[in-house]
Amino acid sequence: MKKEIYLDNAATTKTDEKVVKAMNQYFNEKYGNASSLHLKGEEAKRGLEEARDIIARKIKANSNEIIFTGSGTEANNFALKGLFFANCPKKDHIITTKIEHDCVLNTCKWLESKGCRVTYLDVDEQGFVNPKDVERAIISKTFVVSIIHGNNEIGTIQNIREIGRICKKKGVLFHTDACQSFAKVPIHVKKDNIDLMTINAHKIHGPKGVGALYIKRKKGIRITPLLHGGGQEFKLRSSTENVPGIIGFGKAVKRMKRKHIKKMRKLRDYFIDELMKIPKVKLNGPTGKKRLCNNINICFKNIEGESIGSFLNAKGIYTSTGSACSSKSLEPSHVLSAIGLDDLEANSSIRMSLSKYNKKEDIDFAVDEIKKTVEKLRKISPLQ
Amino acid sequence: MKKEIYLDNAATTKTDEKVVKAMNQYFNEKYGNASSLHLKGEEAKRGLEEARDIIARKIKANSNEIIFTGSGTEANNFALKGLFFANCPKKDHIITTKIEHDCVLNTCKWLESKGCRVTYLDVDEQGFVNPKDVERAIISKTFVVSIIHGNNEIGTIQNIREIGRICKKKGVLFHTDACQSFAKVPIHVKKDNIDLMTINAHKIHGPKGVGALYIKRKKGIRITPLLHGGGQEFKLRSSTENVPGIIGFGKAVKRMKRKHIKKMRKLRDYFIDELMKIPKVKLNGPTGKKRLCNNINICFKNIEGESIGSFLNAKGIYTSTGSACSSKSLEPSHVLSAIGLDDLEANSSIRMSLSKYNKKEDIDFAVDEIKKTVEKLRKISPLQ
Repeated sequence: MKKEIYLDNAATTKTDEKVVKAMNQYFNEKYGNASSLHLKGEEAKRGLEEARDIIARKIKANSNEIIFTGSGTEANNFALKGLFFANCPKKDHIITTKIEHDCVLNTCKWLESKGCRVTYLDVDEQGFVNPKDVERAIISKTFVVSIIHGNNEIGTIQNIREIGRICKKKGVLFHTDACQSFAKVPIHVKKDNIDLMTINAHKIHGPKGVGALYIKRKKGIRITPLLHGGGQEFKLRSSTENVPGIIGFGKAVKRMKRKHIKKMRKLRDYFIDELMKIPKVKLNGPTGKKRLCNNINICFKNIEGESIGSFLNAKGIYTSTGSACSSKSLEPSHVLSAIGLDDLEANSSIRMSLSKYNKKEDIDFAVDEIKKTVEKLRKISPLQ
Repeated sequence: MKKEIYLDNAATTKTDEKVVKAMNQYFNEKYGNASSLHLKGEEAKRGLEEARDIIARKIKANSNEIIFTGSGTEANNFALKGLFFANCPKKDHIITTKIEHDCVLNTCKWLESKGCRVTYLDVDEQGFVNPKDVERAIISKTFVVSIIHGNNEIGTIQNIREIGRICKKKGVLFHTDACQSFAKVPIHVKKDNIDLMTINAHKIHGPKGVGALYIKRKKGIRITPLLHGGGQEFKLRSSTENVPGIIGFGKAVKRMKRKHIKKMRKLRDYFIDELMKIPKVKLNGPTGKKRLCNNINICFKNIEGESIGSFLNAKGIYTSTGSACSSKSLEPSHVLSAIGLDDLEANSSIRMSLSKYNKKEDIDFAVDEIKKTVEKLRKISPLQ
């Protein structure tokens, strides 16, 4: 079998084998509907609630604050549309940033067509939002501030505790999309003053098709369901509970250990250091602890990121030029534009994202191939 | 191990072992993001499209008319809210029935709070909608008629071809919730004049957390996404594609054979015949080919359905008193009320639903236990 080096873990990850094993029990034996009253339903319900507990504990929430959804995208749509429909017309203003994932940006765009006003905050050259900008943007009509925790393209980790503090002080809800950071960066929803938070399973070796929205149980949070129906998930998200998927989510969270994060961070820095030795390259996003432990995003000046990616692909090295969702788009990344890259630079950038399964020898092999590819492409590039 | 007889297959089914095997390959090896451009993404995409083809062929649709969702509930919400937001205020009227699943009824209720008008059609004593009532209810402002194909509680299969014909004649869209009937009743979306149809996987031995909305590719169908984001699923349903789940859905459809339906229908009729020998019982819903092949719903006069269910549960026989979603509600079933049962009769009814895994000896055992239970409960019942 051909050697494969998977460096696109921000797009999705391999499902951990122990996660698959845990799920299989719920496909084969404990297959009941968690809302059924008989024993077969009860055993499914028990597994579901255990998984809910594991996830709640990970972010220091209460179990009844975790609402399972079908994905991070659904949780983000639920948070923003749900708050809008529950609060409009009394309040009609959202504050977000220019570097959100498409599922937040496109939800905001749709809400604008429904009469919502949206402020899209700028970020600095490393992708950081200035908490003071958040404070200045809040008006009496603002119902939520929604800011991505760890950026999916450039790895910037925002100072959410400070942003949360400001929102609390101003009496505005704070939502954060933590799909990339969850289980990689410590999150304490109470200390961080987070009111709503989106998380999902498939970025941390859990299954695709499962996410959750944390919703703080406090007076004053009114939210309309996105999915109406049988009243599952504390009447907030109807649908037959995806028990095997949720079991897998819980198991994946349990399997994410501090040692994996340390290992990824070390590999990331080694990878970045090696790539920075190539002439005319630039790291997109910050360094150190304020960068996601598994994110590398490099601009290779004067060559197309697409071309590098396609050469590497042929060698069995899988990278990406942006988020997987917009990988078919020819537009330069809105995140790279927001941190000040021009179109040429944005289109010369590639993202490599690690997982606990990557080894140093994989990185060495990848560095070698990237060096060769960049050299080759620069020789034939018309952009010199 | 205790003997278990699972007769709640309308709530959910055991995942077929071959389905699990097919999914496991996509958890363990072909784990790429179907939107990624590299080989790992392409192999996931290939599997996804094969599954889409299988499902499209099953209902005689084109592949690009199948939009995967996270559940039947999501597909029903998507259909009704999506059409409402795309058509309102030009058109603002929905026609549905009093025997829909909660996810249609509660979506309609929410839409009413947003300015939508909804007509809830009556049904006859067996749960049939009179197509003439549909025709009479259509007004110039109607944008969709949404009628459940096979009822989840009493098994009534509507004459959707006739209803579809009327909708087509009147220039109104026709949506049907086929979660219970899909792959059990032949459906030909073109001949049946269906414009939108909801289906899901976990009622036919596929995984939970996967559904689809069929949307006919024709001019004049305007629908707003329920999930905004990266633009997956032909820009109609954003979210990282749940590839393993979708693979499982495809495999489950492939594994549903005509022989299974014949077997279930035979067992169903045998089961009904045996139960009808008990004094003071009544079958809810129709008989023969107009009843779902796996549905049995019986009213045992003067005893509580809950009590029968709980006695049977103790014997390892799993039944239900209504839909799983509303199993914790104390309200009498809205479906049984709609076919004319009074509250006492509705609360004296239980549903048993079969799958391809049920055997004649299971049914014999269940019949025996039901007889004993009914006898015992009637002796102590104050309702005689």
